[in-house]
Order: sequence, then structure tokens, then C-alpha cells
Amino acid sequence: MQKNLVPRLAAEFLGTFVLVFGGAGSAIFAASVLSGDNPNVNMGIGFLGVALAFGLTVLTMAYAVGHISGGHFNPAVTLGAVLAGRVEPAAVVPYWLAQLVGGVAAGGVLYLIASGKEGFSAVESGFATNGYGDLSPNGYSLAAVLIAETVLTAIFLYIILGATDRRAPQGFAPVAIGLALTLIHLVSIPISNTSVNPARSLGVAVYAGSEPLMQVWAFFLAPLLGAAIAGVTYKFIFPDQSDHLLEEIGS
Amino acid sequence: MQKNLVPRLAAEFLGTFVLVFGGAGSAIFAASVLSGDNPNVNMGIGFLGVALAFGLTVLTMAYAVGHISGGHFNPAVTLGAVLAGRVEPAAVVPYWLAQLVGGVAAGGVLYLIASGKEGFSAVESGFATNGYGDLSPNGYSLAAVLIAETVLTAIFLYIILGATDRRAPQGFAPVAIGLALTLIHLVSIPISNTSVNPARSLGVAVYAGSEPLMQVWAFFLAPLLGAAIAGVTYKFIFPDQSDHLLEEIGS
Amino acid sequence: MQKNLVPRLAAEFLGTFVLVFGGAGSAIFAASVLSGDNPNVNMGIGFLGVALAFGLTVLTMAYAVGHISGGHFNPAVTLGAVLAGRVEPAAVVPYWLAQLVGGVAAGGVLYLIASGKEGFSAVESGFATNGYGDLSPNGYSLAAVLIAETVLTAIFLYIILGATDRRAPQGFAPVAIGLALTLIHLVSIPISNTSVNPARSLGVAVYAGSEPLMQVWAFFLAPLLGAAIAGVTYKFIFPDQSDHLLEEIGS
Amino acid sequence: MQKNLVPRLAAEFLGTFVLVFGGAGSAIFAASVLSGDNPNVNMGIGFLGVALAFGLTVLTMAYAVGHISGGHFNPAVTLGAVLAGRVEPAAVVPYWLAQLVGGVAAGGVLYLIASGKEGFSAVESGFATNGYGDLSPNGYSLAAVLIAETVLTAIFLYIILGATDRRAPQGFAPVAIGLALTLIHLVSIPISNTSVNPARSLGVAVYAGSEPLMQVWAFFLAPLLGAAIAGVTYKFIFPDQSDHLLEEIGS
Repeated sequence: MQKNLVPRLAAEFLGTFVLVFGGAGSAIFAASVLSGDNPNVNMGIGFLGVALAFGLTVLTMAYAVGHISGGHFNPAVTLGAVLAGRVEPAAVVPYWLAQLVGGVAAGGVLYLIASGKEGFSAVESGFATNGYGDLSPNGYSLAAVLIAETVLTAIFLYIILGATDRRAPQGFAPVAIGLALTLIHLVSIPISNTSVNPARSLGVAVYAGSEPLMQVWAFFLAPLLGAAIAGVTYKFIFPDQSDHLLEEIGS
Repeated sequence: MQKNLVPRLAAEFLGTFVLVFGGAGSAIFAASVLSGDNPNVNMGIGFLGVALAFGLTVLTMAYAVGHISGGHFNPAVTLGAVLAGRVEPAAVVPYWLAQLVGGVAAGGVLYLIASGKEGFSAVESGFATNGYGDLSPNGYSLAAVLIAETVLTAIFLYIILGATDRRAPQGFAPVAIGLALTLIHLVSIPISNTSVNPARSLGVAVYAGSEPLMQVWAFFLAPLLGAAIAGVTYKFIFPDQSDHLLEEIGS
Repeated sequence: MQKNLVPRLAAEFLGTFVLVFGGAGSAIFAASVLSGDNPNVNMGIGFLGVALAFGLTVLTMAYAVGHISGGHFNPAVTLGAVLAGRVEPAAVVPYWLAQLVGGVAAGGVLYLIASGKEGFSAVESGFATNGYGDLSPNGYSLAAVLIAETVLTAIFLYIILGATDRRAPQGFAPVAIGLALTLIHLVSIPISNTSVNPARSLGVAVYAGSEPLMQVWAFFLAPLLGAAIAGVTYKFIFPDQSDHLLEEIGS
Repeated sequence: MQKNLVPRLAAEFLGTFVLVFGGAGSAIFAASVLSGDNPNVNMGIGFLGVALAFGLTVLTMAYAVGHISGGHFNPAVTLGAVLAGRVEPAAVVPYWLAQLVGGVAAGGVLYLIASGKEGFSAVESGFATNGYGDLSPNGYSLAAVLIAETVLTAIFLYIILGATDRRAPQGFAPVAIGLALTLIHLVSIPISNTSVNPARSLGVAVYAGSEPLMQVWAFFLAPLLGAAIAGVTYKFIFPDQSDHLLEEIGS
């Protein structure tokens, strides 16, 4: 990771832009595309394709700019990384801002493109927002959503911290981390439409009317909580961990 | 692999937790999610997505903690590894306990989240349990299930032992092993709902009523048998194999 | 990369041939194959399978011949690479010709095979061509298509330039770049049938009648524009980048 | 690769066994599994899942035993490799026998398991055999099938020879080669049910009655022809290629 914060913030902005543009974009444009010949056949990518898309945004962008910023693209990941001693505390707020702005910018470009199809309405379509209760894709309660998002974000951080540990095979972390995000979506799209990332949630919620926006707090709270649990506990569970990222930064 | 057993057992607990939470969770929550607009369209991930989810649990957790415990997450794998001389015999029982507890803990959290949707019943839904005869997803006999589970677990162990052999490309074993588990599920979900892992079978069976639990013996027997066959024969078929894991442990 | 242009052009011809043969071929032959038993069931691979096929053409051919030519297989990628200082300017026009000829050759073999099924018509089937407005798979306007193609090609180039940067993990670039193309298709098949590659667009358009051919300009313009934006800006956003490819070529 | 032929032949037997058991097995058991609740919904893996399964058999087994035998698992690959100077000519016939026996053995175990479901008939179900004309999944002519199989096998060999070239990134060849087989299936399952491998074709044809067996010649001819074209031409198109495999063998 570099010491200079400017390219790091550019990398986080770009990575989070791609995460929301590619992940939420695949859900908005491609999840459900009924065949013109037979409306019982979905030619679209379904939840499986959306899960793959979200994972590939992180896998690809972590190889592209991970060596610059660490490749978080997610405020919860940055929180977990700082609590685990992998990132200097002074970077947290700038990282968060770059991620949130990147997510909202991506949502805006998605909105612009989606408007190029007649009859589009972000509010009616849901615009790939996260939700609980009535807004949960398959009707899960707030409690179920909070548990799922907290547990899955904690798992995500254990994988991130483990795969970037000095003792793990070098170079493979983007594969492990990206495909972990795919795994998380394979489990939880029907529960909450899957957040584990406040920037992803906010990035689309601001365009989809008041209801999803009023629920967005849950997708800040649970991911940040899950990431904090993993970030704090990792070094006690697996002592002798690598502090190389922090050392490199020299903070 | 480390010599200290405590972090190794923590890694096996965590990895098996993720395997059951992610793999069985994807089946419980996401395999079948019929579209609200057209009940002939499944937006869910189907058996293909479940197969991918199971594989990605092992791929990701093996990169995260494989350097700590060897990344078994499966009592059958531990048995095969000890018979092939890759793990010290004293580790077997503690590994098994950590794996079984991790699997049952994950099943419990899945149950908790699933209960957050009205009308959920673990017994009626099957709760992603393994089974033969009437409980086989596509009606396969006990004999067919035992053969399939034994052969597939033996293949799994040959891949694990081969990909972690000293002569194999370094760093890629988690990719090979994780995707081997995906391959196994692509073949056998309709046969037995795919076990090849007693901890995965027990982890959900304890929550799903007496019928699946009474069949769980088959998913201890066949995976352990298949793993034992591969573990014993590997070193005779492919002599000159690496004993580096055992050497590192120093036992 | 080699200095001798002849094997490099052979590699670009072969790679682009495989990209069009595999990517467009999967769409033509396999996207929609309704079950003989139940026409409401699609046994085919859908948009998800087509997205995977396009990505795997690049992943596999970049490992096969990337060390010879750099593995562009796409005139837009070559433009971005030269603007970023990764390829010598004298190679651009020969690369473009090899890519366009490779794409059109693949389209011809696809046409030959497709004609082996009774009732085939390239014009009526669309032959996997790109399009906007009436020819957009899901009815997106020209403006939406131009924005999507430009943004996605820019993202593609940022990933290519980043993953082949000297500071990125070595050897993984084909994984990142190939799966980036899968990601791009997961988002945009319903919008434009996804080009981000003039050679892919031309390769099938020449066989599918006048309408797709009259729209092919858009799939030269937008990808080249997006690639140029990324190629020019990359070195300013992420300074201290690797110039190793250019240095190796010695131009 | 080892000099001793015995473990090499064991590796080829085992790898081809897994290729047919996993690839054809996924097609036989899991491609089409209609939902008990709604027969318009296929919970099975479809052609996409079968394509993935075939690729993963090669990816995983090449990591497991590729360092022992080279990981061909396919008589056409062995032919191409010997023509390209990568394998000693004396190994060809033993390799072919090990591969054919491995394929037929896997077909037998598949038959045994499949018989554990009431009403199974290998002849009526097709048993994942390859075919043209009336036996082509989507009705393609013999000519179309021969062209597709020849072109796709040639592409397969170019990828194999390129990815194992001394100049290519080390360790990644199994990923490239395995996913190339997935790509090939994504294109051609509807055409011929995809062979590119005589051992895969024979392995199931011997159990499925006389019709598929009478067509099996086409799936010896076309793959061997395609592989021979690539094997002979590779060293002229991309001179300065690695002869390291042959050198290691010392023949």
C-alpha cells in the first residue's frame, strides 16, 4: 500500500464505483429479463448472476488497485482493517468519504442508463436497494436481517484478514475476498438483498424514494458491527498475525 | 501448519461454521425463490448456486485459515489426511470435535435467521439435510447414495492430497479443493443432497426432526470410508509424495 | 511480450477468433435451448452462461498467448494500452487488422456451423449482434447504450492497466481481465448485448443483414472512447506506474 | 512429469475417471431436476452447470496429478502433445489405454448409481452420450458437428500448449485448461453434447445402446484431427516454444 493518500482515495472511489455499478447494475438491468418468446423463461442472470457480479467487482478491482489502497471498497472493511491494526486510523474517515461518494456516483450513472428504457421507475423497481420486513426480497424480519448481515460481514472480515495475513499464500487474496462476497450473496440476497457494505446500500438508496432510505441505517449498523467484531477478535484468535500492511504504511 | 493446537481448532471451528452456514444456508434461503410476478420463474440460485456456495466456503476459508489448521473443515478429510501421513494422529479427535461443534453452531444460526420468515418449518422444508430413499431429493436408493458418497469422497481426498503434494504448484490448493467440492455437488445434489462431510450432515440434521437424523449414519459411514480408501492408497499409487505437512508439525 | 510482430499478430488473430467464436458462439448456439419435454424450461445457459463464456475466452487465451502479444484481442484495449504507454504506437494498426480479421473469420465459422441446423437464419436470430433502440435486447435507447459501453470499457481498461501494473501480483492478470469481461456482460447484455470490443461487434454483424451493420459504428465509437479516457487518465490517477511492457519491447 | 510410466498411467486413469464421472455424471443426475412443486421450474444445473462440471474435473485433477502425468485425461490431448514435442512418442499408446479404460470404468459406476433410481434407462435417457443428426441435442448435422468438434479441439490444444509454454505464468495452466473445457461446453453442448475427448465419448456410449455407439467414430475422428492440427502448427506459429516437458522426461 502507498503512503500518499491521494491515489489511495482515488482507488477507493474507483473500486466502490465499480462495486455498485457492476453489482447493483447487474441486479437492475439483468437479473430478470423474460424471454420475448415465452414469459415463463427468464433469460436473465437471476440471483446467481448477481452474486457472481458483486464478487467479480471486488476480485477484479482488488487486482487492479489493491496494491494502491488495500482494496476495501467498503466502509465496514475499512473499520475492521483499522481495528485489526492493518490500516492507520487517520485513513478511516477519508476512506469512508471516498467509498460513499463512489457508491452514490455509481448509483447516479446507473439511474441515468436505466432511464434510457421506457417506463423505468427507480421507486417501483426497487433499484437494487437493501431492505427488511416489507422490503426484504423474501419477507425476512428486521431481526433476521440484522443477524444475517452481522454474521456475514464478520465472516467476510475473517476471510479478508486471514487471506491477507503474511502467512497466507501471496497474490491470491483478491480471489478469496471477491469470491467470499459472491458466497455471501448466494446466501442472503433473499434475506436483505445483501449489503455487508454501507456504501453499496447508500449508493442506490438515495435514488429509490424514501422507504429504502429510511431502512438504510440497518445496513450501516449491522455491517459495521460485524466488521468490528471480526477486526477486534482476529488477532486474539489467530495470534502472531502479520502487521505488514501497517508496517509498510509506516504509521 | 502451526504446532499449537488452540488456534488450529479455532480455525477448524470457524471454517466448518462457514461451510455449513454458507453452503446449507444458500440451499435453505436461496435455492428456490419464485418470482412474485410469475411463479414459473425461479429467481433463486438452484442446485448450481448451492454447488458454487459450498465450494466457495472451502476455497475462501482455506485461504483465510488453511495456513493455520490445514483447512479440513470436514471429519472425513481429517481421517484421510492422517492415514496419508499428513496430520499427526493426536490431532484427529480434537479436529473432529471442533468440526462437529462448528457445524452444529452454524445450523443453529441458520435456524434462528430462517425463523425470521413467517411460516418457516425446518422439518417441512427439509433444512438442507442429506438423505436416501424417500429423503433423497430425486429418489435414489440407499445403495446408490452409499456408492456415490464413497466414490465422491475418495475423489475429493485424492484431489486434496494431490493438490497439497510438495510437487504440485504452490498456493493453488484452495482453488483446486474448493472447486472440487463444487464439482461434487454438481453431480450429487439430486442423489443425496451431497454430504461427503459428516459435520455438514449433522450440522443441519439436528434441527430438522427425527427422520433426517435417523439417516445421518450413512453420511458418517460413506464419507469416512471413501476418505480412508484414498488416504491409505494415495502413497502407494503416487509414491515419493510429500510429507512436508507432517514434518512441519514435527510429530 | 516479443519484439517480432509476426507471432504477436498471430496471437491477436487467434485470441480474437476464440473470443468471438466462444463468446458469440455460446450466445448463438446455447443461450436458449428449450427442453423437449417442457418448453417452459430453458436447458440453455442464458445470459449468465454467455457472460461466463466471453470472460473465459479472454482468461484462457491470455494465459495461452498473452506472453506473446499482451493478449488484447480487442481494438479498444490496444488503443488504451498505447495511450497508457504500454504498447509501441507502430503496433496499433497491425493489431487492429489482426483483431478485426480474427473476429470476422470466427463469425464465418459460426455461420457455417449454425447453418447445419434446419431453419437457421442469421438475420432473424440476430446472430449475437450488438444493437441499440429496436435492436437492444431489452429496448434501451442509443444514449443509454453509448453511456453504458463507454463507462464499461473505461472500467475494463482501468482493470487491465491496473492488473498488469508492475506493482500488482504477478501472473493473475488474465484471471482479473477475463473475469472483468464476464462482469461487464453480467451488467450489460440486456442493454446492448455487450460489445466493449469493435472486433466482436463487427465479427458477427457482417453476417446478420444490414440493420445490425448500420448500428456497428456505435460499438466502435463508445468502446474506443471509453478506452481512450482510461488510457490517458490512468497514469495521472495512479502515478509511478509500470512501463515494463514498453521497456521490454524497447520502442 | 515423472519418467516412471506406472504412476503416470495411474494418474491418467484416475483423471479420466473423474472427468467422465464428474462431467457426464453431472449431466445424467443433475442437468434436469424439475421442482416437485412446479414442473415448469428446473432446480437442476442445466447446460451451464454441466459445462462448469466438465471444466472443474480437469482443473482439479490437473492440480492433483498434473505434476505426475501432465494431466491429459484425453487421447486427443495426448496426440496433440506428442506432435508438439511435449511428450515422448512411446507414452502415447499406454496413455490412450489408461484414458479409455478410465472413461469406461467411470461410465460403469455412473450406470450403477443411476440404476438406484426407479425407472432409469440408459438408452432412453441418452446417458450423456455425444451425437449428431437425430442424436444431436438440438438437431445439428454431421458436418456441423465435425466442424465444431475439430475447431474446438484445436482451440483447446492451442490453449493447453500455450498455457504450459515455458514463457507463460507458472502454476496457472490448470486454471486456463480446465476453464477452456468449460468454455468449449458452453458453446457446443447443444450441437454435439460436446466431446473433444474420445475417452469421454466412449466412456458413456458403451452403456447406452447401439445408436450412440455407432456414432462414436465421429468423436474419435474430429477431436484427434483438431488436436493434430494444433499440435503440428503450434511450434511454427509461436516458435521458440518451451520443450521443457520433453527435456524433463529425457526421451
